Amino acid sequence: MADPLQTQVFSLAGLRINGARLWSSLMRMAEIGAGKNGGSHRLALTNDDKAARDLLADWCTEAGCTMWIDGMGNMFARRPGTEPAVPPVLVGSHLDTQPEGGRFDGVLGVLAALEILRSLQEAGIKTRRSIELVNWTNEEGARFAPAMLGSAVFAGLRSSTFAHAVEDRDGVAVGNELRRIGYSGPIRADGGHPVHAFFELHIEQGPALENEDIPVGVVTHAQGVKWFDVAFKGFEGHAGTTPMKGRRDALLGAARLIERVNEIALSQAPQGVATVGTIAVRPASRNVIPGSATLSVDMRHPTRPALEDMAFKLRTAVGLIGAELDLEAECTEIIALPPVAFDESAVSAIRRGAERLGLRNRDIVSGALHDACNIASVAPTAMVFCPCIGGISHNEAENILPEWATAGANVLLQAVIETAEIVV
Amino acid sequence: MADPLQTQVFSLAGLRINGARLWSSLMRMAEIGAGKNGGSHRLALTNDDKAARDLLADWCTEAGCTMWIDGMGNMFARRPGTEPAVPPVLVGSHLDTQPEGGRFDGVLGVLAALEILRSLQEAGIKTRRSIELVNWTNEEGARFAPAMLGSAVFAGLRSSTFAHAVEDRDGVAVGNELRRIGYSGPIRADGGHPVHAFFELHIEQGPALENEDIPVGVVTHAQGVKWFDVAFKGFEGHAGTTPMKGRRDALLGAARLIERVNEIALSQAPQGVATVGTIAVRPASRNVIPGSATLSVDMRHPTRPALEDMAFKLRTAVGLIGAELDLEAECTEIIALPPVAFDESAVSAIRRGAERLGLRNRDIVSGALHDACNIASVAPTAMVFCPCIGGISHNEAENILPEWATAGANVLLQAVIETAEIVV
Repeated sequence: MADPLQTQVFSLAGLRINGARLWSSLMRMAEIGAGKNGGSHRLALTNDDKAARDLLADWCTEAGCTMWIDGMGNMFARRPGTEPAVPPVLVGSHLDTQPEGGRFDGVLGVLAALEILRSLQEAGIKTRRSIELVNWTNEEGARFAPAMLGSAVFAGLRSSTFAHAVEDRDGVAVGNELRRIGYSGPIRADGGHPVHAFFELHIEQGPALENEDIPVGVVTHAQGVKWFDVAFKGFEGHAGTTPMKGRRDALLGAARLIERVNEIALSQAPQGVATVGTIAVRPASRNVIPGSATLSVDMRHPTRPALEDMAFKLRTAVGLIGAELDLEAECTEIIALPPVAFDESAVSAIRRGAERLGLRNRDIVSGALHDACNIASVAPTAMVFCPCIGGISHNEAENILPEWATAGANVLLQAVIETAEIVV
Repeated sequence: MADPLQTQVFSLAGLRINGARLWSSLMRMAEIGAGKNGGSHRLALTNDDKAARDLLADWCTEAGCTMWIDGMGNMFARRPGTEPAVPPVLVGSHLDTQPEGGRFDGVLGVLAALEILRSLQEAGIKTRRSIELVNWTNEEGARFAPAMLGSAVFAGLRSSTFAHAVEDRDGVAVGNELRRIGYSGPIRADGGHPVHAFFELHIEQGPALENEDIPVGVVTHAQGVKWFDVAFKGFEGHAGTTPMKGRRDALLGAARLIERVNEIALSQAPQGVATVGTIAVRPASRNVIPGSATLSVDMRHPTRPALEDMAFKLRTAVGLIGAELDLEAECTEIIALPPVAFDESAVSAIRRGAERLGLRNRDIVSGALHDACNIASVAPTAMVFCPCIGGISHNEAENILPEWATAGANVLLQAVIETAEIVV
């Protein structure tokens, strides 16, 4: 009884990407829109983004791939399979960066996909399914909000009409910028094309893998996210003449809530997180008791019931604190993104890849949102995380070790070729 | 044994100011720089301040007084005593207001002094000591910081050279504005002239008297004030990917301190108060853990040891919270004004005045600073407070009842004539 998968495994285990070439490509790409402090500043659809896209296109063409661009500027590079009519295995991420961002966030996923295409080309390996590299447009959302726009249109979650009309702070629209830099392609973006599976390698953007000295994270879920605006209203008063008793101090309410938000997250730790990132008071004078305080709350959890529980506890806390301190209290949910559970078979392909390579790995939940979260709604999807130093990201100081990049790309390779099926 | 004071008391108890005339003067004065919402907007040394000064000067002259202006624009109106060479009893406050301020803060004290001069004139009463009305320049400090500038120069706490050079936001100097409005007088302001006692009637600017339905507050002390800047530094991180454990959230430190500041004040209640009026975080993004947080702390207490204890507890709390949350923590004292204990004999004169009139009264501590705090350093000084509705001040909604104004002015009259000594 010859098990086809077993046969394939012997071939798979021996294949490796070229880690030195991957690193060299990463460093070359980082020169485009290089930041002052060692990072990259390459916002979506700028001239630097165009230069990065052009370089990627050159590299993909050199690797023998067919390129095309869809109406959202999403770039595809195809290595045809032996059965070109069956849906391909898609692999990639994004080349745009945060302002004063890092060299690896997104870029690693795109260039690891490139490195897979190059390595398969060199080794002359054939796969049943085509393998397609993708560079998604405007993942970061730093210039054009919302984030993950290209993949959202591909997954049919947003229309390209909506996406083209999105403007940056200077009123420049996505559609116009796509045309200006020559990346408004002729292929219909809305709803994309059938995909057999999607894999994305990304840096963790958190400290867990580095802390545990584990080079490979098998991403099983992406956290659900809820954003709230909370407002407390009390009464302004003279700081010197208003006794403590009878004060209606809106900032004291906000402070009490911040402590409570921390407790709510700790009650759901280690999976749950919650953050108050902004706060403002009025009239904001040293000797006036704040009459109003507003703050933002960001809550995340990989499971929906736990996230709902956190939200319930938040609303309860806002109400209780309002009652305790005689404040008007309001809690408004402004964003609710449900948790994503990645496809079990796709996740298993990642895990098997790591095991075949003998790499320590652990299941991990993504705290950030990624293009993979959008694509998961239309195709079996999974992600690989590689560690990043100190968990630092969205910062020019973002950094990884070359061996982490190599390990992550090799796991990605394993998952991709297992799924695309090597033709022996 | 004829006790001279006893003899005098019989005369004193019968004398009253004209409450209706006082109220009418208050309302007339409030028309100068009238605010849109029923208050007054009459910043120091503006054209409106000049108009208010001119009106006061007319009224004082009509009341038979001699007027003069010192080099700080402080206005004096003298009703000579039978022994003009002995130091006078000084009584007054200020006519300048906060931006969009109230009609009574300061004004009541000046016009009650005027009403005393008018009533003594009408009754033909002679006093041994001269009685001098004073209108201090720039008490509010809203246009020219620091506040209480005219009385500070009179008390020798600031030089007029310093005071004249103080500029508003448009770079206009006090000295120039005094000359422009014709209130740079020829009399040397620095160190003033000898004063036997100073009395000031003021609205409470807090809710205590109204809450207890007591028309007269006998001000025994003014609180000491300390201002601090507190800064926490942690580490910015992605709100989604940074686990709760290991976070260094500067805003959580600030929140914990705000709660602690409240506890510190409550531990010294009802005399102690403490307020966090301003807070700022960086980078102030919804999905980024704040890497830095700064806040202001205002602490007040009428006694120096208690105020020092509060400050000690604050510094300790900042250090402990820093250690708990792995934050750099800094606490900088930026202002320290010691408590003022008003002169016992002057305070007793106020208290006796209220008792003679059969008015309910209580000792009270001033939470705000007043010109009287400056003058207390050079002459026996005391203050009378009258209630204000809801404790609201520095607000166009500031309001008092006519009977409170009358009661306060009558108590002031009693204290002034007892101290100036009626000549029977």
